[in-house]
Amino acid sequence: MPPTDSMFLLGETREHPLHVGGLQLFELPEGAGPDHIIELHRDLLSHADIRPLFRRRPRSPLGTPGQWAWANDDNLDLEYHVRLSALPRPGRVRELLELVSRLHGSLLDRHRPLWECHLIEGLEDNRYAVYTKAHHALLDGVSALRLLEDTLSTDPADRGVRPPWSPRVRTDATAPPPHREPEPFAGLVSAANLARDLLGLGPAVLRYVNQAFQEQSATLPHETPKSILNVPITGARRFAAQGWPLTRIRAVGAAAGATVNDVMLAMCAGALRTYLLELGALPDKPLVAAVPISLREGDGVGGNAVGIILCTLATDLDDPAARLAAITASMQRGKDFYRGMTPLQVTALSAIPFTPLALSLLPGAAKITPPAFNLLISNVPGPAEPLYWNGARMTGVYPVSIPYEGQALNITVTSYAGTLEFGLTGCRRSVPRLQRLLTFLEDSLAAMEKTIL
Amino acid sequence: MPPTDSMFLLGETREHPLHVGGLQLFELPEGAGPDHIIELHRDLLSHADIRPLFRRRPRSPLGTPGQWAWANDDNLDLEYHVRLSALPRPGRVRELLELVSRLHGSLLDRHRPLWECHLIEGLEDNRYAVYTKAHHALLDGVSALRLLEDTLSTDPADRGVRPPWSPRVRTDATAPPPHREPEPFAGLVSAANLARDLLGLGPAVLRYVNQAFQEQSATLPHETPKSILNVPITGARRFAAQGWPLTRIRAVGAAAGATVNDVMLAMCAGALRTYLLELGALPDKPLVAAVPISLREGDGVGGNAVGIILCTLATDLDDPAARLAAITASMQRGKDFYRGMTPLQVTALSAIPFTPLALSLLPGAAKITPPAFNLLISNVPGPAEPLYWNGARMTGVYPVSIPYEGQALNITVTSYAGTLEFGLTGCRRSVPRLQRLLTFLEDSLAAMEKTIL
Repeated sequence: MPPTDSMFLLGETREHPLHVGGLQLFELPEGAGPDHIIELHRDLLSHADIRPLFRRRPRSPLGTPGQWAWANDDNLDLEYHVRLSALPRPGRVRELLELVSRLHGSLLDRHRPLWECHLIEGLEDNRYAVYTKAHHALLDGVSALRLLEDTLSTDPADRGVRPPWSPRVRTDATAPPPHREPEPFAGLVSAANLARDLLGLGPAVLRYVNQAFQEQSATLPHETPKSILNVPITGARRFAAQGWPLTRIRAVGAAAGATVNDVMLAMCAGALRTYLLELGALPDKPLVAAVPISLREGDGVGGNAVGIILCTLATDLDDPAARLAAITASMQRGKDFYRGMTPLQVTALSAIPFTPLALSLLPGAAKITPPAFNLLISNVPGPAEPLYWNGARMTGVYPVSIPYEGQALNITVTSYAGTLEFGLTGCRRSVPRLQRLLTFLEDSLAAMEKTIL
Repeated sequence: MPPTDSMFLLGETREHPLHVGGLQLFELPEGAGPDHIIELHRDLLSHADIRPLFRRRPRSPLGTPGQWAWANDDNLDLEYHVRLSALPRPGRVRELLELVSRLHGSLLDRHRPLWECHLIEGLEDNRYAVYTKAHHALLDGVSALRLLEDTLSTDPADRGVRPPWSPRVRTDATAPPPHREPEPFAGLVSAANLARDLLGLGPAVLRYVNQAFQEQSATLPHETPKSILNVPITGARRFAAQGWPLTRIRAVGAAAGATVNDVMLAMCAGALRTYLLELGALPDKPLVAAVPISLREGDGVGGNAVGIILCTLATDLDDPAARLAAITASMQRGKDFYRGMTPLQVTALSAIPFTPLALSLLPGAAKITPPAFNLLISNVPGPAEPLYWNGARMTGVYPVSIPYEGQALNITVTSYAGTLEFGLTGCRRSVPRLQRLLTFLEDSLAAMEKTIL
C-alpha cells in the first residue's frame, strides 16, 4: 500500500472517521410499484461481479504494526455493503438528513472492503435516496462523485445501468465516455492523485508547501481569527444539504461582476455571519476560507493544476454587496498570486485542499500555525444534464465530506443540471444547529439579490 | 473509575465492541394513531431529567494515557441518544433483526454517555420495537435488562411510565417495588458486581479462578473440541431472536425428568448440531457450553452466589432424547461439583460468565487454555406477568449480547410472561446464516416432543 493510502488508515480515530460520502435523491420512475426499491436492492445484490477497487480491504501484516497492505476480499459479503434502510414518517428531507448524519458518523469495518451503499426508502414525494460512503484511503471525494456519475445515464429509458462497484460493460468500446465534464473536473481528480503522491515524498516537500502557504497568507487583509469552528472534534456528525438554482446565482454574479464561485462563497459568508451572530460567536476579524480552484491554461499555469486560495469571507461587513465585492477581490488576489508561481510551487500547494489532516500526521511535517483558515469550501463541477439510474431521474446530489481536527465544518458544493448543490458536514457537538445554515444560505442569497439586482 | 470499569474501555477495539443490548417488541395500544411513535419519541425527549448513571461519560485525563475516569456530561444531547428509526417494507421480523444487527455492530461515542435508545417504527402487525444499548463499563447485561423492566408497568392503563434514563417518581414511597423477581435475578446482579470487584483484585485471584475452572473441566466426558465458533472475530454482528412457549418446554422437561434450563440447553444443542452438520463443521467430540447458574440456599451454598457449569451439549448424539439425558446428567455433575466447594471458590468461579474477555486482558492473568468451552449460554430469569409501556403491551424481550474473541456466538435467553425468549448474537463473518439457528431451535424442540412425549 502506498504510504499516502496507509496514512489515511493510520490517521483515523473514533473521533475522526476518514471516509467521504455522497447523497443522491431520485424520483421513482412512472409506474413504479410499492416494491420498486426492494426490487432495486435485489437487483443490486445480483451484480456480484465486483471491480477490484471495491474488493480491496486493508490488511495489517503480522509483525509490522502500523503498516498496512491491501488484500483482496475473495469472500465479499455484498449484503453487508449494499443495505436497505427506511426513514421514519413523515419521511421529509429532515428525517433523511438525520439518518445520513448517523450513517456518516460510524466507522467503516476494516475487515472488509472500505465502502457501503445505502438504499433509503420512505422519502416523501415519491422519491428515494442513496447514500454511499467510501474510505479516503480508497477514493478521494472527487473521484467518488465521478464514479457515482459514471453509473448514471442521460437516457431515461436506459435500464441496463450497473452499480458503481460493478465493471461497466460498454456496448460500443469506441464511443467516448458519456457526460464527462471536460477540463476542470478531470483536473481535480488528477490533482488529488498528484497531491497524494507528493505527500509521499515527505517532510522536505511539506516544508516547501508550508512556506508557499504562508506566503499566500500575506495576501489577506487580516490574520485568520479563531472561531468556534476551529476546535477539537468528536465522532458524531451533522449533515445538511440543499440546492439553489444556478440562474439565481448567475444573475447576481453578472450584476456584480463576480463568478459563480464568488457568489457561492458570498452565500456561505452571509450564512456563517448570521449563524455565528446568533450564537454570539462572530469573531471581530473576518473568517478565512480555503478554496480549491482549478488553474487552467488560460490562467498561465499548465496542465492539471489545482491551487488553493485563502479567501476572506468578509464576515465583518454587514452589507451583502460589500461582502461579495471583498470576496471577489480576495479571490482575484489569490489567482494573481498563483500566476507568479512556478509549476512546482503550484503542485505543492495542490496538496493542501485534499490533505489538511495529512499535513499534521506525517512525521516531522511542518505544521501550519492553526488556524491558517477557518473552513474549507470546495466547489466540484458536476454534470450539466439530468441523469437517470435505471429510469429514475436523479433530482439532487450532495457531497458528504470530512470535518478535520480543528476544522469542525466542511462545505462542499457541486453543480448538477442547473442547480448548485450544497453539502454541509459538521461535528455534531462543535457545530450546533447546523441545519439552520440552510435557511441562512437562502437569506444570504436573497439579500444579495435585493441589494445588487 | 474502578479498574474493572476502565478494563471494559481499554479492552474495546473496533472488532470487539463491548456493549450489551436489549430488543423489546410492543403492540400499539388500541386507538393509537399513525403518529403514535413520533409522539412517543417526542415524549421521551421531554424527559430531560437524567439519572446520573446515564449522564456519565468516560474521560481520559491528560498525561495519563490508558487511564479513564468518569465525568458528568452537563450538556447531554438527548436527541443524540434517543433516536427514531424505521424498517424498510415489508417490516417483518427479518428486517428488524437486520437493523438491530447493524445497530449492535457500531461503537458507542466515547465523547458522550455510553448509551443509545432506538425507537423503531414500520414493524408489521401493528407493533413497534425498542432497541437499547449500553456499554459494559456502564451496565452489565443483567442490570440492563432489569433497568428496562423497571420502566414498565403491569397496568395497561398506566400512562405515567418514564424512560429508563429518567429517575422514577414513585407516588407511594412505601410500596414495594413492583414485579421484581425474588432471589435468582437479584442474585445474578449482585454476583456480576461481585465478580467485577473480584477481578479488580488481580492476577492472584485469577490464577485461583483458573485452577477451579480446570478442576471442573475434569467432570466433562471429553475434552472441549475446536469449532468454527472459536475463532478471531470481526466487528459486524448478526442477531436473531425468537420466543418459545414455556408450556412446551416444561412438558418435555416433566416427561424426561429435566429442568427448563436442561431442555433449553438441549434445544440449543440440537440446533447447533444441525447447523454445524449443514456447514460440514460438526466436531467429532461434543460441544461444551459454559452455563451460568444461580446457586441458592437449597443447593448448599449460601447467598447471592452464581456458578458456571461446563456442560456437554452431546452434539455427537443423533437421538434427541439421549442428548437431553446427557445434558441433564452433565448439569447435575456440575451442580454436585459446586456442592463440594468453599464459598470463596464459588465466588471466584462466579467471575467467569461475566468476564471471559476480562480474563484475557488483565496483565499477567493466567489464561484458560482455549477453548475451555465452545460458547456461553445464559438464562436470565425475567418477569412472569405481561408488562406495559405507556399502554403498549410488551410482546417480547430479547437480550442482545457480546461475542468475544474466540467466542463468536453467544446465546442468552430470558423468560417473560410464559415465553422463553432466545437472543442469538454472533460475529457476522464467523457465524454465517445465523438466522437458520431459529428454525433449527424449533426443529430441535419438536424432535424432543416427538421422541419424549
